[in-house]
Amino acid sequence: MDKLVECVPNFSEGRDKAVLRGITEMLSYVKGAQLLDCSADPDHNRSVFTVLGEPEAVCEAVFKATSFAFRHIDLSWHEGEHPYIGVADVIPFVPYRNMTMAEAVQLAETLGQKLADKIHIPVYLYEEAARDPRRKNLADIRRGGFDGLEEKMADPFWKPDFGPCAPHPTFGAAVVGARWFLIAYNVNLNCNNINVAKEIAKKIRQSSGGLPHVKAIAIDLAGKNMVQVSCNLTDYRVTPIHVVFEAIKKEAAALGVEVVASEIIGLPPMAAIAQTAGHYLELPGFTAADILEDRMLNSE
Amino acid sequence: MDKLVECVPNFSEGRDKAVLRGITEMLSYVKGAQLLDCSADPDHNRSVFTVLGEPEAVCEAVFKATSFAFRHIDLSWHEGEHPYIGVADVIPFVPYRNMTMAEAVQLAETLGQKLADKIHIPVYLYEEAARDPRRKNLADIRRGGFDGLEEKMADPFWKPDFGPCAPHPTFGAAVVGARWFLIAYNVNLNCNNINVAKEIAKKIRQSSGGLPHVKAIAIDLAGKNMVQVSCNLTDYRVTPIHVVFEAIKKEAAALGVEVVASEIIGLPPMAAIAQTAGHYLELPGFTAADILEDRMLNSE
Repeated sequence: MDKLVECVPNFSEGRDKAVLRGITEMLSYVKGAQLLDCSADPDHNRSVFTVLGEPEAVCEAVFKATSFAFRHIDLSWHEGEHPYIGVADVIPFVPYRNMTMAEAVQLAETLGQKLADKIHIPVYLYEEAARDPRRKNLADIRRGGFDGLEEKMADPFWKPDFGPCAPHPTFGAAVVGARWFLIAYNVNLNCNNINVAKEIAKKIRQSSGGLPHVKAIAIDLAGKNMVQVSCNLTDYRVTPIHVVFEAIKKEAAALGVEVVASEIIGLPPMAAIAQTAGHYLELPGFTAADILEDRMLNSE
Repeated sequence: MDKLVECVPNFSEGRDKAVLRGITEMLSYVKGAQLLDCSADPDHNRSVFTVLGEPEAVCEAVFKATSFAFRHIDLSWHEGEHPYIGVADVIPFVPYRNMTMAEAVQLAETLGQKLADKIHIPVYLYEEAARDPRRKNLADIRRGGFDGLEEKMADPFWKPDFGPCAPHPTFGAAVVGARWFLIAYNVNLNCNNINVAKEIAKKIRQSSGGLPHVKAIAIDLAGKNMVQVSCNLTDYRVTPIHVVFEAIKKEAAALGVEVVASEIIGLPPMAAIAQTAGHYLELPGFTAADILEDRMLNSE
């Protein structure tokens, strides 16, 4: 069976429909790569695309889309809530089928080199592709933002992995890497006190002694008059979605608050959903392989 | 996108590996049809196959497999726990994608006619394909079993929909039809009193005023020293798996008993698993369409 890789490029544009349509087309043209999802947020002024397919095809489609975005997005005019340092500042490859993490790292390196060679932008490698553990975390690379990037890159420690040692005036820099599936998972509480969400986020996140492979922050959903615990699950195999949900529910109950809903952003893999259903139904050993569609995909 | 149909033929053979291999090959040969699953049980002396693909291809593959089974299985020597009236006594078609139930019924009629014409066996149409509501239920058609079939067919009411008005001496009769996905779902209790399982089964099944589209019986798992509530969910869209699980849990608790595990037999569709995960995680509106693999399958 063919190798399949997922790529989830993030672009610093969530408003201009013509530009978003152009990126969409670039990600749809290449045979062997499928554009599965696109979500654009005008407040964040940011868009996230999900592409899946054969490694070379996905790499080519993302290269074309990034080149298009390079020509049509100018960060010197950018406004938006989301942190960023580049027009396409996060491009993670995720090994999906018949692929190792090492192969996904290789793909990130190939794309990074090509972006530097062809459109002359600086490229940082992150997560599993990082060449220095201190440059593994996206947040560290992005700290200071687009406006602080010129100063940051003057420090030899922040010499990019590919391309020039200064930000491109309109593009900034790209961060390309390889990682496992990331599940963006938010839990809403029937409470408008941000400190409650902060306390729960602190309890459950790995960095303060909570659940492994879980990042969590508190978000004020002012429009809904409620607060949210917003999580990133960086390895659902170690800490499944239901473990995070139950932990937040328990911590909320201890503070006299209730969970009212949760949401998954983007497209979780079937394996993570099977794991959750299997847990609640007490189905020992139940996995995605026990689901009709998984058999369909794996018998082609 | 192509039409896709699922077919789940049941054969009265669960022991003879050469015969099972032959059926497997027949179901694998036809281009456009995929054999996704096979489970054979020596105690029941029965095997269940799951085939998915284009309607004509699936129909052809199942015809070939039934013809093979016709030549290689002789029911006059059959022994096994499971009720049966034919070598291939249940052949349901399930509309999976871009197909109506009416089209699945048409497919059942086409296969039934072909089996009668080519291998000269009697064929009953059941469930959505039934031409008389009194012949809709498989259990009614199968009542009396293979040994009672000759007498039963002497009654004009039991004239088959296709083929001769008497059982074939080695094949018996086939029951072909169309239905929605059936989820075979069993829940085990930490208790060895069959009456407890019987009482719970009675509470939850539709026929005694319980949950719609749920059939349930009590099973003694003597080898495990426990009892089981064994269910068929005939429309998970109306009564999802988690509703059945929670109902059994609640009835068990009322009798001082606990659920220790559950199991899904065969391949449930991703939609049913997404529904269950969405319920427990309180994800409003979450469906299979929000899962990566569903997008893959639907963007091909």
